[in-house]
Amino acid sequence: MIHTITTPSLLLDKARCMDNIERMVAKATANQVGLRPHFKTHQSLEIGRWFRECGVQRITVSSLRMAAHFAQDGWDDITVAFPVNFLELDRINQLASQIQLNLVVENREALQALEKGLSHSVHVFIKADTGYHRTGLSPHAFDQVDQLIESIQQCSKLTLKGFLAHAGHSYKAKGKSAVLKVHEESLLQFQLFRLRYQDSFPNLIYSAGDTPTCSVANTFPGVDELRPGNFVFYDLSQWQIGSCALDQIAVAMACPVVAKHYDRNEIVVYGGGVHFSKDRVQLANGEIIYGMLVQPQGNSWVIPEMVTPVRSLSQEHGIIRGDQALLDTFSIGELAYILPVHSCMTADLMKRYLVSDGSVIDDVLRLV
Amino acid sequence: MIHTITTPSLLLDKARCMDNIERMVAKATANQVGLRPHFKTHQSLEIGRWFRECGVQRITVSSLRMAAHFAQDGWDDITVAFPVNFLELDRINQLASQIQLNLVVENREALQALEKGLSHSVHVFIKADTGYHRTGLSPHAFDQVDQLIESIQQCSKLTLKGFLAHAGHSYKAKGKSAVLKVHEESLLQFQLFRLRYQDSFPNLIYSAGDTPTCSVANTFPGVDELRPGNFVFYDLSQWQIGSCALDQIAVAMACPVVAKHYDRNEIVVYGGGVHFSKDRVQLANGEIIYGMLVQPQGNSWVIPEMVTPVRSLSQEHGIIRGDQALLDTFSIGELAYILPVHSCMTADLMKRYLVSDGSVIDDVLRLV
Repeated sequence: MIHTITTPSLLLDKARCMDNIERMVAKATANQVGLRPHFKTHQSLEIGRWFRECGVQRITVSSLRMAAHFAQDGWDDITVAFPVNFLELDRINQLASQIQLNLVVENREALQALEKGLSHSVHVFIKADTGYHRTGLSPHAFDQVDQLIESIQQCSKLTLKGFLAHAGHSYKAKGKSAVLKVHEESLLQFQLFRLRYQDSFPNLIYSAGDTPTCSVANTFPGVDELRPGNFVFYDLSQWQIGSCALDQIAVAMACPVVAKHYDRNEIVVYGGGVHFSKDRVQLANGEIIYGMLVQPQGNSWVIPEMVTPVRSLSQEHGIIRGDQALLDTFSIGELAYILPVHSCMTADLMKRYLVSDGSVIDDVLRLV
Repeated sequence: MIHTITTPSLLLDKARCMDNIERMVAKATANQVGLRPHFKTHQSLEIGRWFRECGVQRITVSSLRMAAHFAQDGWDDITVAFPVNFLELDRINQLASQIQLNLVVENREALQALEKGLSHSVHVFIKADTGYHRTGLSPHAFDQVDQLIESIQQCSKLTLKGFLAHAGHSYKAKGKSAVLKVHEESLLQFQLFRLRYQDSFPNLIYSAGDTPTCSVANTFPGVDELRPGNFVFYDLSQWQIGSCALDQIAVAMACPVVAKHYDRNEIVVYGGGVHFSKDRVQLANGEIIYGMLVQPQGNSWVIPEMVTPVRSLSQEHGIIRGDQALLDTFSIGELAYILPVHSCMTADLMKRYLVSDGSVIDDVLRLV
């Protein structure tokens, strides 16, 4: 299969991917918490089935279109972890007629629009801001939460299901202890919601969990359900955060080498921002990198002793800098294997996986 | 049409776009140089036809797939401005049998592979490095250029067509005088090629031109052909470089407002890295921004007196920060119009244009 590659292609190592899935399933089981993985990273029906085979029954997605994509493959309990966009009311009604649809709300405007336009009942989670400050209601503004709960109770088609938190600031942490600090502080904030509402609403679900905290932490006090997503593949960002080892990253780009420049020790590959995305990661020494070379082996790859980063990306070009010995190891027309910085974005751009078992997966969500 | 938008959508103002095309055509005509616009920005057959109506007959693309995409719509003289990837020999032969295909070479390995595998003749440009140092041969290494020319002459299927330069370092310039400096220095380097080869090869074409230099400069001494691409839409990066005014940017994203947070003066829109790309631009004051709010008007938009930037993007969320008055002007469920930082990447992700004349364009290149 690899011998048929002629253009930048996304490789998926199934063994590493299954290890990542099974490790997270085992961690959730050990903690007696539910696992509702986020499927925005892989967006594939087939990879979704790998989760199902591991016992996963409920999922998270980031858009209503993505919910519809997975609903067609039998997923019947889906949370859209994004503040409800009520312009898509038709799609909401369509989904709510088929599956258990769980929406996320944080304002009364959305509730009013739902109440007015819903033809089927949905469950709602209130978005809790536990420190990331992107969306959600703060535990320091419980009067707003109270009002929102009251509004939900007045809506005949809405059932309050629980609170949903996302400690996205864990993505800015560097190292495991920094991730654990975010984890603890975020859960402490989340705990304030439980303390306030456990008597009046004893059956609510407290849903949390991003890839860094779910990978690094071993306990999840006060949490009923985990929603990590990126861990299915991991990437250089997660490696830099401390969520994974390089050898746990399950996707790599195969990029044709198109030029070598000995005068400046650079290799030019066919593979740029339209393939990888322009996401970048800053190493501990301050260097900004866009990918990292790994060593092809069979239908997969291994991590070399000395790692070589991708130094820059333009729309179609990638530039790798190394020493003369590295340049000598590549011939023009060969493939360079490169770990991506942000696997969610790379997978979203590529929309196709060449799997280490010889299969091709392209059953991913398409917007147009 | 705008009233049917429910999810992040790319708007195209046709009047601004036609102005951009006509202005560049007029500049090339005034300079008596050819215009071979780069189509990687829009990637659309329909928008390609707008160029054809303005008299454009030859185009540039960044991949062989893109060449095949446009060849199907009657474009019969196409330059692939990327170091030839000979793993795609089948596609090269297919194209070369249909159209005048021009490839870019910079090493003998590629020539050997072409000579061995070509079934039809192609023209080649030698990539000249005129200061960007991404790809190409330097005028300080004319022995390599000589060798390459000799190799080309030994290939029965290859005809040396000219030299091709790309002063991509103009993208790092800030302000018109900085762009002009790059322009002059780059053309001086390019001139060295002409001086060396004009006697032995008097009919070669010297092809150059990126959006910053083609937008800012008024003369192109020593250049026979211009290849700008981004100017068809422009974007905030080009505005920041000095290539265009804000009011010449021809594309904007329409993004549903999903939340407002008065405590931190933020608006959350549905529109993130999977829609815009994560490209960013640094303003003169050091701020890094990911987009800029404009004011809807009819089927298009106008530039407000006070501009408000997008402060951050995650995968699906965009965060706009403003004062309370700005927050008051938006209702949840309305659309925010946002100029993108890098229109090439945004168009590549969205793959669909809602045009100001009421039409929808989605005849763009798809990789899978």
